[in-house]
Amino acid sequence: MIETMVETVALRDGQVRFLDQTRLPDAEVFVSTRDWQVVAEAIRTLAIRGAPAIGIGAAMGVAVAAEAAAGEVESVAAAAARIEAAIAGLARTRPTAVNLFASLERMRGALDRARAGADPGKAGRLALAAALTHEAEAILAEDLEQSRRIGQHGQSLVPEGARVLTHCNAGGLATGGLGTALAVLYAAQAQGKRFEVLVDETRPLLQGARLTAWELTRAGIPATLITDSMAAAAMSRLGVDLVVVGADRIAQNGDTANKIGTYTVAVLAREHRIPFFVAAPLSTIDLSTPDGDRIPIEERDRREVSHLGASQLTPDGVQIRNPAFDVTPHRYITGIITERGVFSAPYAESLKQAFETTAVVRGA
Amino acid sequence: MIETMVETVALRDGQVRFLDQTRLPDAEVFVSTRDWQVVAEAIRTLAIRGAPAIGIGAAMGVAVAAEAAAGEVESVAAAAARIEAAIAGLARTRPTAVNLFASLERMRGALDRARAGADPGKAGRLALAAALTHEAEAILAEDLEQSRRIGQHGQSLVPEGARVLTHCNAGGLATGGLGTALAVLYAAQAQGKRFEVLVDETRPLLQGARLTAWELTRAGIPATLITDSMAAAAMSRLGVDLVVVGADRIAQNGDTANKIGTYTVAVLAREHRIPFFVAAPLSTIDLSTPDGDRIPIEERDRREVSHLGASQLTPDGVQIRNPAFDVTPHRYITGIITERGVFSAPYAESLKQAFETTAVVRGA
Repeated sequence: MIETMVETVALRDGQVRFLDQTRLPDAEVFVSTRDWQVVAEAIRTLAIRGAPAIGIGAAMGVAVAAEAAAGEVESVAAAAARIEAAIAGLARTRPTAVNLFASLERMRGALDRARAGADPGKAGRLALAAALTHEAEAILAEDLEQSRRIGQHGQSLVPEGARVLTHCNAGGLATGGLGTALAVLYAAQAQGKRFEVLVDETRPLLQGARLTAWELTRAGIPATLITDSMAAAAMSRLGVDLVVVGADRIAQNGDTANKIGTYTVAVLAREHRIPFFVAAPLSTIDLSTPDGDRIPIEERDRREVSHLGASQLTPDGVQIRNPAFDVTPHRYITGIITERGVFSAPYAESLKQAFETTAVVRGA
Repeated sequence: MIETMVETVALRDGQVRFLDQTRLPDAEVFVSTRDWQVVAEAIRTLAIRGAPAIGIGAAMGVAVAAEAAAGEVESVAAAAARIEAAIAGLARTRPTAVNLFASLERMRGALDRARAGADPGKAGRLALAAALTHEAEAILAEDLEQSRRIGQHGQSLVPEGARVLTHCNAGGLATGGLGTALAVLYAAQAQGKRFEVLVDETRPLLQGARLTAWELTRAGIPATLITDSMAAAAMSRLGVDLVVVGADRIAQNGDTANKIGTYTVAVLAREHRIPFFVAAPLSTIDLSTPDGDRIPIEERDRREVSHLGASQLTPDGVQIRNPAFDVTPHRYITGIITERGVFSAPYAESLKQAFETTAVVRGA
């Protein structure tokens, strides 16, 4: 069994403890907090990032809000109102990743169940907190199990001696600790396969250079960093055997929102006849979003493009666009690797089926 | 008539005076030198960059070497040897742009002509210097005239109200002062056309963010900076009407080496049915290179990718690749805009024809 690669976010002694990813790779800084608003800010600033990790972090934020409310307010109703406020606040942090909303929906369900029949006194408020802590822990445990299964299903797609390209970070840092796209690579490594990974640096926030390079190096997987603009040359001159990336939201028809630049890689992969796989848990698939045009795309601060740390890269006065995600149309996607197997086109059918079965439908 | 947009490199009072492009956009620092080795170092570090500007700068480096030799050595033969050493040293600065070698070849021809029948004394050595200064000035003047003509031929390709995308800097800073790809835009602006330009930031050295954004803003052309990874999303979501880029070397069959990332843009343009034009003087076309596979691609220092200024972007130990150029196969290129008109496929024929005629063959 593969272990967790990194402790991205966890509940410890009634606090959310997370690795501040904005500080990597320079420093491994862990932040512990009892304040859900600190968690919300961490999600907003990408200290906690990656669709599954955002969902887990937000759930844990709700759990610590419930703990705090148990001691600070007088009634179960007041505690529930505080918890609802935390849920609403955490939902406003980032718009694209569907895991955030799915996870908060689960926490709200747990809250509703716990309120029904809760003791009206402090015992009831503590019961809410215990139920929400339990639910957040369950979301983390399920995430780790999903990552393991994604790895199992995906690893057979990695040829011995392969050169694999990935974009952004869909690793342990983007999840409860093991990853989606990188879980596939960790599982292939555990099988004894040798391969190397080309890591797109992933401008503007450099998740590839800072996070994926750090994770793979720690895991002992040979990694070569390239700028995003080098992917085409790498495909045509070096040769690439497989592309695997994560996802922030997958629509019903398979259109996939992921970190800006993913669509570029998908077009290049098809042009060079390279299989292009998306790895994501079912919680990333949003059957209520019919296609990629309906996925809201977050536009982030221009400073992420114009500056790097304190240095300004471009003159004042120039306009800047900074969409955090793009949408890869389903026709570019060879397959979607989930905890229930690898699904392929037509996605409108195969993804629906994925939710209806509990067994492995397809894949290794 | 369009004026020069910027004084990139010039001969002034026996010195080469150049704008240190590594300092832009923070500071406009002009360096003046009588030492060809300072010029060579400027080319190596990209203080002077862009295929035509490299050719002009190198020619001027030879001219100041001749001036220095006139005062420092005793014979015409010794002066010629000094000048030959400068030519050889300047040729070793960068391998890809063909303009460098073409320009140095012209300076060697001028040297040979000047030596024949030169007075054996100081007058002869001064005659060498005068001839080489004259030749370098001629190369600059021809470059400016070529840019003007490239602009004239290319401007009709820019639709009124267009959104144009460009990569790297093929502007005044890359040439004697007016540009190739950007000369097309300056000419369109001079025609009274309105349009906006999406500027790829162009990692790793950010020539788009630092130089093109600076040039276009100075020229009053609306420019929007994007990361290289946003080009595909811009094409599919915003719409792009035209891509125009420069070139470092064009092979006989039309395959074009240009700044890393150009090939990506070309593939994306074709996928989105957007015309993709290369703008370059004939001196960038190398009929002795049959195709793109024979173009040497410079691999530059890993630090350009791993660091930005003093900040390290990636952990120690990760491998890095840093090819400075990629090759866009000719089948992606809608047309090549030169000083003699706009040429299209089959390039093996049309480019050969371009050299054989002195009239405008095709185009606006």
